[in-house]
Amino acid sequence: MGMKRPKVSVIGSGFTGATTALMIAQKELGDVVLVDIPDQEDPTKGKALDMFEATPVQGVDAKIKGTSDYKDTKGSDVVVITAGIARKPGMSRDDLVTTNSKIMKSVTSEVVKYSPDCYIVVLTNPVDAMTYSVFKESGFPKNRVIGQSGILDSGRFRSFIAEELNVSVKDVTGFVLGGHGDDMVPMVRYSNVGGVPLDTLVSEERLDEIIERTRKGGGEIVGLLGSGSAYYAPAASIVQMVEAIVKDQRRLLPSIAYLEGEYGYDGIYLGVPTILGGDGIEEIIELDLMEEEKKQLDKSADSVKKVLEILE
Amino acid sequence: MGMKRPKVSVIGSGFTGATTALMIAQKELGDVVLVDIPDQEDPTKGKALDMFEATPVQGVDAKIKGTSDYKDTKGSDVVVITAGIARKPGMSRDDLVTTNSKIMKSVTSEVVKYSPDCYIVVLTNPVDAMTYSVFKESGFPKNRVIGQSGILDSGRFRSFIAEELNVSVKDVTGFVLGGHGDDMVPMVRYSNVGGVPLDTLVSEERLDEIIERTRKGGGEIVGLLGSGSAYYAPAASIVQMVEAIVKDQRRLLPSIAYLEGEYGYDGIYLGVPTILGGDGIEEIIELDLMEEEKKQLDKSADSVKKVLEILE
Amino acid sequence: MGMKRPKVSVIGSGFTGATTALMIAQKELGDVVLVDIPDQEDPTKGKALDMFEATPVQGVDAKIKGTSDYKDTKGSDVVVITAGIARKPGMSRDDLVTTNSKIMKSVTSEVVKYSPDCYIVVLTNPVDAMTYSVFKESGFPKNRVIGQSGILDSGRFRSFIAEELNVSVKDVTGFVLGGHGDDMVPMVRYSNVGGVPLDTLVSEERLDEIIERTRKGGGEIVGLLGSGSAYYAPAASIVQMVEAIVKDQRRLLPSIAYLEGEYGYDGIYLGVPTILGGDGIEEIIELDLMEEEKKQLDKSADSVKKVLEILE
Amino acid sequence: MGMKRPKVSVIGSGFTGATTALMIAQKELGDVVLVDIPDQEDPTKGKALDMFEATPVQGVDAKIKGTSDYKDTKGSDVVVITAGIARKPGMSRDDLVTTNSKIMKSVTSEVVKYSPDCYIVVLTNPVDAMTYSVFKESGFPKNRVIGQSGILDSGRFRSFIAEELNVSVKDVTGFVLGGHGDDMVPMVRYSNVGGVPLDTLVSEERLDEIIERTRKGGGEIVGLLGSGSAYYAPAASIVQMVEAIVKDQRRLLPSIAYLEGEYGYDGIYLGVPTILGGDGIEEIIELDLMEEEKKQLDKSADSVKKVLEILE
Repeated sequence: MGMKRPKVSVIGSGFTGATTALMIAQKELGDVVLVDIPDQEDPTKGKALDMFEATPVQGVDAKIKGTSDYKDTKGSDVVVITAGIARKPGMSRDDLVTTNSKIMKSVTSEVVKYSPDCYIVVLTNPVDAMTYSVFKESGFPKNRVIGQSGILDSGRFRSFIAEELNVSVKDVTGFVLGGHGDDMVPMVRYSNVGGVPLDTLVSEERLDEIIERTRKGGGEIVGLLGSGSAYYAPAASIVQMVEAIVKDQRRLLPSIAYLEGEYGYDGIYLGVPTILGGDGIEEIIELDLMEEEKKQLDKSADSVKKVLEILE
Repeated sequence: MGMKRPKVSVIGSGFTGATTALMIAQKELGDVVLVDIPDQEDPTKGKALDMFEATPVQGVDAKIKGTSDYKDTKGSDVVVITAGIARKPGMSRDDLVTTNSKIMKSVTSEVVKYSPDCYIVVLTNPVDAMTYSVFKESGFPKNRVIGQSGILDSGRFRSFIAEELNVSVKDVTGFVLGGHGDDMVPMVRYSNVGGVPLDTLVSEERLDEIIERTRKGGGEIVGLLGSGSAYYAPAASIVQMVEAIVKDQRRLLPSIAYLEGEYGYDGIYLGVPTILGGDGIEEIIELDLMEEEKKQLDKSADSVKKVLEILE
Repeated sequence: MGMKRPKVSVIGSGFTGATTALMIAQKELGDVVLVDIPDQEDPTKGKALDMFEATPVQGVDAKIKGTSDYKDTKGSDVVVITAGIARKPGMSRDDLVTTNSKIMKSVTSEVVKYSPDCYIVVLTNPVDAMTYSVFKESGFPKNRVIGQSGILDSGRFRSFIAEELNVSVKDVTGFVLGGHGDDMVPMVRYSNVGGVPLDTLVSEERLDEIIERTRKGGGEIVGLLGSGSAYYAPAASIVQMVEAIVKDQRRLLPSIAYLEGEYGYDGIYLGVPTILGGDGIEEIIELDLMEEEKKQLDKSADSVKKVLEILE
Repeated sequence: MGMKRPKVSVIGSGFTGATTALMIAQKELGDVVLVDIPDQEDPTKGKALDMFEATPVQGVDAKIKGTSDYKDTKGSDVVVITAGIARKPGMSRDDLVTTNSKIMKSVTSEVVKYSPDCYIVVLTNPVDAMTYSVFKESGFPKNRVIGQSGILDSGRFRSFIAEELNVSVKDVTGFVLGGHGDDMVPMVRYSNVGGVPLDTLVSEERLDEIIERTRKGGGEIVGLLGSGSAYYAPAASIVQMVEAIVKDQRRLLPSIAYLEGEYGYDGIYLGVPTILGGDGIEEIIELDLMEEEKKQLDKSADSVKKVLEILE
């Protein structure tokens, strides 16, 4: 009885998972359970406790628990999956897919056992395929299993545009379709600053450079960090999806959604514009694509299908 | 020495002025001085005190002072002018212009005396002409005298679109040029939801109805209220401009700006897209207009010029 | 299915009710229904529409509806009652009580019909008696009918202390028991700045003056405004209670709670420290009072009882 | 001319420094420069870029730059020093002090060269001595060199109390004096929940356990993490001090301040209650201590003095 604070579980307590947990607490989106494997139980508890100790100073209310026991996730409203390994030098793509797919299956079966009604947001790479894998394992309806990539890609694009023009990031709208990174389909004609089309403000040449930089955005960070990959922008992107669901915002955001005929694809997960609200992906928005855009999206879809073949 | 909290004075303690003061305090944009005529000193003090008493509960720090003495505005960083009379039934437009213009002159001379370096944001109607009047009286450079109308108009448009589509207002970008209300030039091709063009999402017929409703948006509220006019959305719009200046955000927002050749006009204040930052209007963005848009903007400029003739 | 945004109805669209609705929207605590009598339907709709038009500019998602039809409140999670008349010159206290009590009964029966599971927060004066009246009419368990006065009184006290010492309001804790205004029991020994007791920082004489000013705080605003009474701080106080419930915060806040033996009183509503969370008043905190404090609280309770006698 | 966004430099791009930079951006306290040694230039740039790419998604405006060149810190308003090594197993305390003191000197001379008017907040351990070291090297007036420890210690205390009582962290006030960790002097009689003294709510036994846990709070996290130490709560604590300065809040917060006679000490930095505002430490609040408290504070001061002896 009464009003209940939402409960969000984050699987994987690496940098991205931990930063996701922090940002959920900062926005008071709900109580947080941070989960990792038994081997990582103590560090996970340490991070959760450190975050909880920051709550009085930040003036926010959120219980944050570190654990390796899925029982603690019981009754979660939203579950974020960041678990998985990163591709290491010398590792084949097939190995990555196979390993992370196994992790997805084992994580999902635990998640579903304790939170049969939750919404799942997946970040693990290769994200289109991993979201598919979670979808299949969960047996959930498609609206409740969602992948993230487009918010991050367009976030990077927006930050580069804001920097280029020296304007507020608040006014830059960016729009991408399709896969993550290289497979991204930037929709420049749908991107603008306060409504003003980008091509009015940025030269075509610079725009091409910025798009190229966006495509390689993940790699740029990896290269700089030396070890590991980006986590601040990925975490912020995930949290925007969690917020849209938890606060039932019906935002128009790019999500990796299961397609059944939309855009001419069937049975795959792919990045498309969606309405994200209290019931997960409530709608998929279909746009008329120009020939070149459709070609790029086909390429993106092909990439996804090839990875799915590895899965099967 | 040291960091100083910004100081914002709001001239006119009616509903709009008072709500503006409240929202400035809520966002911790600075200390606030709310000014009205000696006759209204006590109610002005009462509102300011009531607002200040709300600050501990809201958890925000802002001193809020009600006064009729312009000395209290000394050293303001930004001054908002909402003072002036509303057009009453039977009052001619010329009478309104003449009366409010006198008020602008007297207010401005006091403002300038105590805050020679401030930025002035004007809301008093008819706003294009009143901003011009303040500009002339102040002797300030043009970047430091700014009028508000486009944020309000596009805010209304955005709220109607969000309602129509049942989506988050956060994702709706609206774009208007020109004068306030009837003289507004809606730039539908520059308006979108999360980047998706409006005409993909809303039928032309409904869009026309929504534009028409936006044009008449001020009147709709006046009609419902019975007495007085809108103040929540106008105050929020002003505060967005104050925030852009105080926090040096370089936002791309519509402002009523002094034109010297831009868009083919000279020596008038008109609503155009601007970069609003720590130095007021830092840039005016010039767009290529289509014939119909240019025609509407000409009409808007003509309206402004006619009012300016009354002034002279 | 899925996550649902909370729904909050505010009965009474006067300054306090309208400001309450605004602040609920600003904090994204839920969708808002603003209700008034049929006579006031249009102005109520006007205020709600104006507020809704401010949401895109403020960047917050909340539907806000003005209405005179209680059907629109259906399924509310929290209902705030601000309806009622203010005491006018020449009006006896009995008349005030009798009139507002009738209003409480009629409002409550409508509220309960459409939202049988809601939490009710009452602000109408005299608030202890009006909360009792709502409690009786609703048939709700005591934890779900709550009155507001202590947050406002301590908010005023805190703002005066912050002003006196020129320190952040964020660090001032104030503590009051008992009735509103004159009947307030200030617990100076429980008030502090960042933990430092007030008597270390403020002389006894000044403290007495500040307490006296707090007692008369409502009257001070009434006197300044000339017509009407305070609404910014009252609205902020209500919203803090709504937030505590909606976000299940378990805050330790003063509430007007139904006592069954606590502090030695039975069957009356009186201001006491409570834990306010997702199930309304989840606990009443009992403090050991010093003789003088208990005497003042008795006086406060007597006042309440006298008003209750009028009710019967 | 015009309003300028504050500039905050953070020296040291480890977990604490990076998290500090993130939180400064999230709160829009200013543009951020994250500095580390040349060896760490690329990872520092990577973290800064990743954070910047998160700003559009978070809806905040802050430029974030990673660098190893102190020229980039030019004109900073506030500089946070987190640089330094952590004590490793087998390392003597003297070695730690000597090494970090050298780092303080080299960092400070660079900071002062480019930002002669800045406020410096120090976090490096042992923090009382390192703040002293920065103070001496900078030649700054004492109000502009400040150390952090008390907000973190009381933050931990507050989180444990909130957890114990299952109440909102917002209502728990904690108060500590003296050194960090073991040398902390908890002022239980100045700690409360919403004004209610702790001993009314928590048994003496549990309170003792919670105080002991607070003292060992840093070690608890170190033990759990396995490698490295806490950074979320330390960063949040630093950011609260930066905010108090940048927004000129005059908050009553514990700071490590230079004492010249206060509390009977002279020429050392020690944790005491201060008013922290736009001019740094604007006041030191002197409290009457009970004998036991004074004894503990003496012990704390002795610890500091012993470390200072190593320095000389």
